[in-house]
Amino acid sequence: MIPNSNIRPDRIGADIDALAAITEPGRPWTRRAFTPMFLEGRAWLTDAMQQAGATTRIDAAGNLVATIAGTRPELGTIMLGSHSDTVPDGGRFDGIAGVIAGLEVVRSLRDQGITLDHTLEVVDFLAEEVSIFGVSCIGSRGITGTRPLEWLSRESDGLTLEQGIAQVGGNAAQDARRDDVKAFLELHIEQGPVLQDGHLDIGVVTAIAGITRIEIVVDGRADHAGTTPMGSRKDALTTAAWIALGVEELGKALASGEHHFAATVGEFDMSPNAANVVPARVRMLIDARAEVRDDMERFLDELGKGVAAMADKTGVTVLAPRIVSDNPPTPCDPDLLDILDAACDSAGAQHRRMASGAGHDTAWMARITKAAMIFVPCLNGRSHAPDEYATTQDIALGAQVLLDAVLALDKKLQETD
Amino acid sequence: MIPNSNIRPDRIGADIDALAAITEPGRPWTRRAFTPMFLEGRAWLTDAMQQAGATTRIDAAGNLVATIAGTRPELGTIMLGSHSDTVPDGGRFDGIAGVIAGLEVVRSLRDQGITLDHTLEVVDFLAEEVSIFGVSCIGSRGITGTRPLEWLSRESDGLTLEQGIAQVGGNAAQDARRDDVKAFLELHIEQGPVLQDGHLDIGVVTAIAGITRIEIVVDGRADHAGTTPMGSRKDALTTAAWIALGVEELGKALASGEHHFAATVGEFDMSPNAANVVPARVRMLIDARAEVRDDMERFLDELGKGVAAMADKTGVTVLAPRIVSDNPPTPCDPDLLDILDAACDSAGAQHRRMASGAGHDTAWMARITKAAMIFVPCLNGRSHAPDEYATTQDIALGAQVLLDAVLALDKKLQETD
Repeated sequence: MIPNSNIRPDRIGADIDALAAITEPGRPWTRRAFTPMFLEGRAWLTDAMQQAGATTRIDAAGNLVATIAGTRPELGTIMLGSHSDTVPDGGRFDGIAGVIAGLEVVRSLRDQGITLDHTLEVVDFLAEEVSIFGVSCIGSRGITGTRPLEWLSRESDGLTLEQGIAQVGGNAAQDARRDDVKAFLELHIEQGPVLQDGHLDIGVVTAIAGITRIEIVVDGRADHAGTTPMGSRKDALTTAAWIALGVEELGKALASGEHHFAATVGEFDMSPNAANVVPARVRMLIDARAEVRDDMERFLDELGKGVAAMADKTGVTVLAPRIVSDNPPTPCDPDLLDILDAACDSAGAQHRRMASGAGHDTAWMARITKAAMIFVPCLNGRSHAPDEYATTQDIALGAQVLLDAVLALDKKLQETD
Repeated sequence: MIPNSNIRPDRIGADIDALAAITEPGRPWTRRAFTPMFLEGRAWLTDAMQQAGATTRIDAAGNLVATIAGTRPELGTIMLGSHSDTVPDGGRFDGIAGVIAGLEVVRSLRDQGITLDHTLEVVDFLAEEVSIFGVSCIGSRGITGTRPLEWLSRESDGLTLEQGIAQVGGNAAQDARRDDVKAFLELHIEQGPVLQDGHLDIGVVTAIAGITRIEIVVDGRADHAGTTPMGSRKDALTTAAWIALGVEELGKALASGEHHFAATVGEFDMSPNAANVVPARVRMLIDARAEVRDDMERFLDELGKGVAAMADKTGVTVLAPRIVSDNPPTPCDPDLLDILDAACDSAGAQHRRMASGAGHDTAWMARITKAAMIFVPCLNGRSHAPDEYATTQDIALGAQVLLDAVLALDKKLQETD
């Protein structure tokens, strides 16, 4: 329960239910960016934002922005935000919880008769999830000047991304980069089990993990499975199996340290994949996530050595690991982390610091302003699936933390300026 | 070299080259059963058989049979044979070497002016390889009364197997089962590296290994690869990796015994197979081959225990191994093995006894008569591939062994009758 608060769980619950009802029929809960259903959700959101007293607009990057002017707009903007788009069959809370929590902060301030000195904005970023164009965080990249120009000509179903941005009301030809944002906060469901397992209310996110994807190809030999003696084989599968186990072991070792680390063999394709043929080739794709870059460097180093040692041991050729993509970690702003910790304490929320293993709009906002985020628990760590679930009480407590942090920031940002 | 022999390597080499030239254009060496190319190959073979002095016919099962009447036909038939069909992109020697070796035995006997007491037949069995109908050994099953009735209605490209048999000149409605065959011998390339590695000329096959196929399903949980801590996962891949390694270890242990054994995870399919999702499910298909049934029983027993222990250890559910198909080993006839050993010695061939890990027409012929087979070396154990290769000299030496064995049998079969 939230003591002495103007945050109203009933409004949050009703909003989330209302947005959940706007879904592709028979496919809960699907509201992908650039679909009519997405625009319907945005129309509902726009109305809700205006009812909360905000003015609304679509910025050039295609983000829906609700604005409450501050008494001293020259101080700049405190921004809250997340996203209202979903993955196919995605959840009711991923992104939406953050947008609605921001909206509730606006309503709560109005209920209390408070106007901030800073301008306050709540943003629904366009297409945070991988959209029909195969890329993610289109809106938060747009607003931070980090959206690659070549993305605009990407096509899906005869529509270019540039046209898609225009359809939602943006204008890709205009520079959408903001220089007035003084702080950014995002609330999001954890998408993992850590808070639930620790009986905690809030995770104060220290960093958005870097993501490195590494391809490994094991190059064995296709032999007859019946006639080739066990000792005369170059079995790509069993060598690949050792490597997959090595990746897990290395991941566990690094995860046992101070910082978040995870390593997963997410893709594994074998050929010829025929019952009576010794496996000739396996292609693996490793997804590695690190809160601190040092851990990733160590992982890459140990992986390279381990794979070479395994090839030596089994006599099966393994190509050197190939880095397919490599994004460094994004630390959250240390001042904001302190403010969020204090806000948790004042809201009576049990909290811990933790890294985000998943990517978020916050990682892009950190390019242009102080940025940080909080997690609220989600049931069994499930997300991107119909059974994704977060309680209204947990989201409301998170909204209270946002509200307290916003109030603190409205003062602190003036001190530090 | 073959001392004092009428077996002529030049004829064998020329025949194999001639048949190799009858291939799907640009796709060496492809002559699949039930294709026009296959019928072209058979037309060439029929002509070659007739030139060797044999009468030819297509039996009801669709086999091409060359017959040299014996002086005492009431004694029954000594049969040699193999198959002229290939897999797609298959080799020049798999099957063909045995048919041509049989043909050369006929020619050699004629050259020497020898007529056997028994009738001698050389058979090109229909569709030994997995054909367009998805099944194998259609001809040898037909001639031994073991072709399942329901196969006849199998369809491929609008053709039923019954129609396919009619197209090659057979009649599926007639009983093709033979009761006059007193002994059957087959020459085949080894399709493995044992003879080459041992610098041997001939393998005298003790048994056609039994083949058991076992499906294992690992049932983990799809979690977010970035946010789910390493210790909170149910990763189907890493549990499956342990099982694949266990299968190899168990296979090696059984293979180190007296009898041939091999175990291979030939199929391995993972889902959702997405970079950022912890693997939820792996389906594996194990191909296990055993010369003696006891080894297979032990394998199945240890596999079941091992899989259960692994599921306990990793906490990931593994469904009980499911036997998909199960064929027992077929021992070759002990009398024929002695005759073949002696024939090797008289031909000056370095030989060993060994099991066949692959299936062959001989396994079916053993249902109706004394049956055995010999292997000749193939380069690097390669088969079912364009680079499959066996030397003319090796095939000729094998033909000499067949010839000597046939001459011995023509006498011995009368003693034992």
